[in-house]
Amino acid sequence: MSLRIDNFNPGPAALPLPVIEKIKEDLPNFQQTGMSVLEISHRSDKFDELLAETITRLKRLMGLGDDYRVLFIQGGASLQFAMAPLNLCDGGRPAFIDTGTWSTKAIEQAEKLGFEPEVIASSADRGFCYIPDEFEVPSDAAYLHLVSNNTIKGTQWQSFPRSPVPMVVDMSSDILSRAVDHEQFGLIFAGAQKNLGPAGVCVVIIREDMLERKAHPATPIMLNYATYAEKNSLYNTPPSFAIYVVGLMLAWIEDQAGGLVGIEAQNLAKAKLLYDFMDESEGFYRPTAEKEVRSAMNVTFRLASEELESQFLAEALDQGFGGLKGHRSVGGCRASIYNAISLDQVERLVAFMRGFAGRKG
Amino acid sequence: MSLRIDNFNPGPAALPLPVIEKIKEDLPNFQQTGMSVLEISHRSDKFDELLAETITRLKRLMGLGDDYRVLFIQGGASLQFAMAPLNLCDGGRPAFIDTGTWSTKAIEQAEKLGFEPEVIASSADRGFCYIPDEFEVPSDAAYLHLVSNNTIKGTQWQSFPRSPVPMVVDMSSDILSRAVDHEQFGLIFAGAQKNLGPAGVCVVIIREDMLERKAHPATPIMLNYATYAEKNSLYNTPPSFAIYVVGLMLAWIEDQAGGLVGIEAQNLAKAKLLYDFMDESEGFYRPTAEKEVRSAMNVTFRLASEELESQFLAEALDQGFGGLKGHRSVGGCRASIYNAISLDQVERLVAFMRGFAGRKG
Repeated sequence: MSLRIDNFNPGPAALPLPVIEKIKEDLPNFQQTGMSVLEISHRSDKFDELLAETITRLKRLMGLGDDYRVLFIQGGASLQFAMAPLNLCDGGRPAFIDTGTWSTKAIEQAEKLGFEPEVIASSADRGFCYIPDEFEVPSDAAYLHLVSNNTIKGTQWQSFPRSPVPMVVDMSSDILSRAVDHEQFGLIFAGAQKNLGPAGVCVVIIREDMLERKAHPATPIMLNYATYAEKNSLYNTPPSFAIYVVGLMLAWIEDQAGGLVGIEAQNLAKAKLLYDFMDESEGFYRPTAEKEVRSAMNVTFRLASEELESQFLAEALDQGFGGLKGHRSVGGCRASIYNAISLDQVERLVAFMRGFAGRKG
Repeated sequence: MSLRIDNFNPGPAALPLPVIEKIKEDLPNFQQTGMSVLEISHRSDKFDELLAETITRLKRLMGLGDDYRVLFIQGGASLQFAMAPLNLCDGGRPAFIDTGTWSTKAIEQAEKLGFEPEVIASSADRGFCYIPDEFEVPSDAAYLHLVSNNTIKGTQWQSFPRSPVPMVVDMSSDILSRAVDHEQFGLIFAGAQKNLGPAGVCVVIIREDMLERKAHPATPIMLNYATYAEKNSLYNTPPSFAIYVVGLMLAWIEDQAGGLVGIEAQNLAKAKLLYDFMDESEGFYRPTAEKEVRSAMNVTFRLASEELESQFLAEALDQGFGGLKGHRSVGGCRASIYNAISLDQVERLVAFMRGFAGRKG
């Protein structure tokens, strides 16, 4: 096996090689501290500096004003499915648009905790292959929960609705992948392990007025946003290594030409290459999401049979293309082409797919 | 600054250099996967193997039978302060022995969640410098919560009480530091960032009968032990890198002569060297914990004045001894001498302390 495969994993996912090389270079002596970053105290000036710089970079990239706070929380997006209603309902009901697995799970968690979620639209009727565009957001809802990109179903909101109540958005699989007005949201959260770093930290961005809402009395201390906001994510020991890698990823993103606008152009070019090729494959490769809401991050597709899909995945792996298997709940194939995947890598993948179709078509 | 200082940090803490070197060696190509360990899927055979091996090593080192399950949970020990009562009370009240900061916080969390904790003994009357030895554990308590080693106060249970109800033990700062009958506990938890690896994962060991207790209805999915037990810690994306480093630490511990008995002998030798030296310093260095319950992990001490302590800490840092400042809530000094600290390092520290006392005494 060569040093690096083309890694299309859905998450944990590929990191840019310069980020991996920087991690390696920083071992075992991080910034002349005489310790690795795994061993420095989270109460040290050095870690304070790392944390502050990471928050500054993230807010700069996202264009967020002083009324937004950045928190680093463990437990992944799945823990946010409980934290959001526990902290933000304050007697009201949360509204949801159900676009597949992750919103479904968030709805189930809110239901289980007794918050009576109101599902105002769903694309379940056609296997979540589209994003609903007709719905009315109740003006008395506590908030509206959306999933901006659906990792498993391969769909992505192309623009966001106008909402009379604050929007809570799960951006786990497309954060920092495109230029978005982030100030339209009251709460943004994202597990880092797709576009933003390694598994083990969830980035939570919250607007001050959302922080002021009264948490439910049954909220554990570690599930209260205020716990993290009041102590700058240092109430207890944070996942310091994961935060460090997020910082390296943010620096790498800032080093790319054009900021988020540049990143978006690059991501759209990668997605277009892959979708256009499949659209022209005379049905050999069949994208599963409706054309107008196809994800630029997770390109889901089927082949004519499961047997052919198995052959495709095996040959791909053999040629050094990893992570192309679809989620076990839906089957099929999926190429996750997050920020760290280059246009070159997608070109190589398309060349392989063309060859495979030629041999089998 | 030389490549490596002598790092006496309380946590995140020093890791053995061979562990850091192994992490470095595994970048960017982990076990010929063509990916780093940060980038491999938690659903891959390779990660399954890593997880299984880590659990096997931990159970082997701790001498745990088939009726114990090992879970990897995020959120640190602080999240366990909520998870333990939410999962284990089942209508009953938890009992606590309060030996300082971390048990106090666990009591506060149980109280806040409405579980009416019963504090059956406390050493608060003398600043937590001792471990209570007179108490009766109510036979109708849901469980008895103990903190085996008190990182901040410098005390450690030398042996554990007999209890008519299951014991829940917070071993965050002394797990795998000594030979203990681990099967006397119903639940063991430990943030990894002291003796066991990096920050970002909490190791939870639970006996099957404790798993069968009915969780409180207000328990979020991610706070339910069953969520982790049913999916072997893979309900959602686990902190895979942190688990990998825990695995390397366990392999390192197994490589030491004599298993936990050998580790314990080494730890006692290190602690004895430091305490004996201080006891013979004619009051220049003053250990804060009562002699019979002194911690072999966190050696807390004072000097005659805060001014002298500041000089001591500054000179120590200058000589390459880091992390010796006491916790901000108590002041003073503290040398954390977890498994990764060698006898040589403690000898160097004592030599420095002797010199400092000679100049200032």
